Amino acid sequence: MATQVLILVVEDDPDVQNVVQECLSDGGFEAVMASSGESAIELLDVAKGKYRALITDINLRPGRIDGWHVARHAREIEPNFPIVYMSGRDADDWASQGVPNSIMLAKPFAPAQLVTAVSNLLNAAPPTG
Amino acid sequence: MATQVLILVVEDDPDVQNVVQECLSDGGFEAVMASSGESAIELLDVAKGKYRALITDINLRPGRIDGWHVARHAREIEPNFPIVYMSGRDADDWASQGVPNSIMLAKPFAPAQLVTAVSNLLNAAPPTG
Amino acid sequence: MATQVLILVVEDDPDVQNVVQECLSDGGFEAVMASSGESAIELLDVAKGKYRALITDINLRPGRIDGWHVARHAREIEPNFPIVYMSGRDADDWASQGVPNSIMLAKPFAPAQLVTAVSNLLNAAPPTG
Amino acid sequence: MATQVLILVVEDDPDVQNVVQECLSDGGFEAVMASSGESAIELLDVAKGKYRALITDINLRPGRIDGWHVARHAREIEPNFPIVYMSGRDADDWASQGVPNSIMLAKPFAPAQLVTAVSNLLNAAPPTG
Amino acid sequence: MATQVLILVVEDDPDVQNVVQECLSDGGFEAVMASSGESAIELLDVAKGKYRALITDINLRPGRIDGWHVARHAREIEPNFPIVYMSGRDADDWASQGVPNSIMLAKPFAPAQLVTAVSNLLNAAPPTG
Amino acid sequence: MATQVLILVVEDDPDVQNVVQECLSDGGFEAVMASSGESAIELLDVAKGKYRALITDINLRPGRIDGWHVARHAREIEPNFPIVYMSGRDADDWASQGVPNSIMLAKPFAPAQLVTAVSNLLNAAPPTG
Repeated sequence: MATQVLILVVEDDPDVQNVVQECLSDGGFEAVMASSGESAIELLDVAKGKYRALITDINLRPGRIDGWHVARHAREIEPNFPIVYMSGRDADDWASQGVPNSIMLAKPFAPAQLVTAVSNLLNAAPPTG
Repeated sequence: MATQVLILVVEDDPDVQNVVQECLSDGGFEAVMASSGESAIELLDVAKGKYRALITDINLRPGRIDGWHVARHAREIEPNFPIVYMSGRDADDWASQGVPNSIMLAKPFAPAQLVTAVSNLLNAAPPTG
Repeated sequence: MATQVLILVVEDDPDVQNVVQECLSDGGFEAVMASSGESAIELLDVAKGKYRALITDINLRPGRIDGWHVARHAREIEPNFPIVYMSGRDADDWASQGVPNSIMLAKPFAPAQLVTAVSNLLNAAPPTG
Repeated sequence: MATQVLILVVEDDPDVQNVVQECLSDGGFEAVMASSGESAIELLDVAKGKYRALITDINLRPGRIDGWHVARHAREIEPNFPIVYMSGRDADDWASQGVPNSIMLAKPFAPAQLVTAVSNLLNAAPPTG
Repeated sequence: MATQVLILVVEDDPDVQNVVQECLSDGGFEAVMASSGESAIELLDVAKGKYRALITDINLRPGRIDGWHVARHAREIEPNFPIVYMSGRDADDWASQGVPNSIMLAKPFAPAQLVTAVSNLLNAAPPTG
Repeated sequence: MATQVLILVVEDDPDVQNVVQECLSDGGFEAVMASSGESAIELLDVAKGKYRALITDINLRPGRIDGWHVARHAREIEPNFPIVYMSGRDADDWASQGVPNSIMLAKPFAPAQLVTAVSNLLNAAPPTG
């Protein structure tokens, strides 16, 4: 079980980046940080199965690609890709903007909620050869 | 139990309209037909709780509003609104374009699948005063 | 498959009794009617596995045993007993008065919703010798 | 929606065959009957996506292939294949012999239970191109 | 994410209080302790959304308000309120006395079970503005 | 809550044994190790409710009892017994060889996934007197 379980995290606030990184590390996951939707999409486009899940903030920067867009892009590449959104004031939009079988974590949330959300989505995903 | 359970159906093919209307009628539902996404949105905007669920085709007409858009609009008005999509070649896009807690019926499907899909979503929706 | 699948229905309104009986009959179930909570409890107490599910109205008569009470009684006898409630103005109380893994059908509902609700609960119940 | 939704049914009792065929037909499905596990496996091996779900009895004939085996074979070909078992005295063995995400219908069951079981499994299956 | 996620815990045994407090703290939650059902109800009545979930023991003291009652009260105020029960000998009564969409942790349970139960209920709750 | 929650773990690789033991211990569970399917079955046969869940590797040794077999044996004794499989190259066979309501963890997985999987299955299991 030497291989790592990489999770792509899209977040532009360094403080939240640190909190998320620490949560995931405590759960035994390896976080890869992208600080904009644009760079997340670049990483996903060349990933070929490298990442096992996406955790994304919604508001990434005015006038730029948001978390809803990044998640849809990830699902176009891999239809079963586990998606967790994190948001404060945009959490209400999940019902209209989120993708099926995703989880919205409304801020504030506890670290255990993030780890449980990612674990549940990974455990439910059908194994692939 | 005299009041009807109205289901808004968005479909531009008259043959499919007839099949869906008959399915719903057999299950005891009352179908209201819209033949374009534009008219569906108009109906939803003035509905104020009149409809209990949305059944929508995806490809409604080239260059016009599609079913993904109609469903997002319905969810912006009412976050728990039950949504069933029907599609043939676009069924694969559900993972990236569908809304959470919706059902995609890939054509061809049997009438019982449509009635069961609508019933399950209605039965799961939290009762509201 | 000659043996019948008996469903105990608690309802004091003869019109609703007829509608429910017809729905269940269309689905291939056999309805046994009780017109008060008191008689439902008597039937359950002597049933010994005779009924496979309970469908109960909430308001059965002022000052008498209500549907919440009947359902709790059924679950004391058999912890996995399938329960469907039907109600109009009391549907909101399901979150505080309903039992776990039950379904609330808020009136008005379509016949297919009732049949689907009962079928789902029966299909999910663990088989017993 | 002219194309049919074919369901492979494995059952050696002609009376039960008739009941199942009628249930499925009422729900708009097309049943294809196999009267032994051996012939079911032959049909599955050449099917290439022809059937959308399997409904199988457990005890098909002493000393012959049983329903547990047929279901495992179907899942080896297609990991998401919808499976419904029907049984009387073997229903208890589902917890140890059934495949994941399958449904056991313990006899006697009502026709609506069979149609709801098949519909739910089909509606939950991820759409495939 | 500076704001805390407060969980109301109702427990009269100081030893169990300590265990629960430590579990929740490890998961990043903040526990608020009530040592009787009466004081829990007072706290809920003035809370106005302050608490995000309720964890309650069942037997709080002979002749006093029990955990079943506290949970129903919490759901009357907020129909989607996450509820976790903890119990030893009363765990069997959950099927008849528990509220819908709640979790019963039968003692003894591991700390991870409590944290996972609370996290799952919070993650499933629809976001509210 | 002094009593321990014992989890039976079947694994022949000492390195993986250590990882699993540490994960479970961090979550507050007590692991009991069996290094072959044969010894796991012996332990289950005399257990009488001693263990609360089974975590099993699939490939235990060529020509010996594998994890699929151990899980079926555990479910024959106790139909609701929580089962988690761990596997690398055999994860794909879960759809045809796994038991209902089990979880397959495809290697590599993070420690949090294992703890969440066990916790969810235990929390969902109906309490028994």
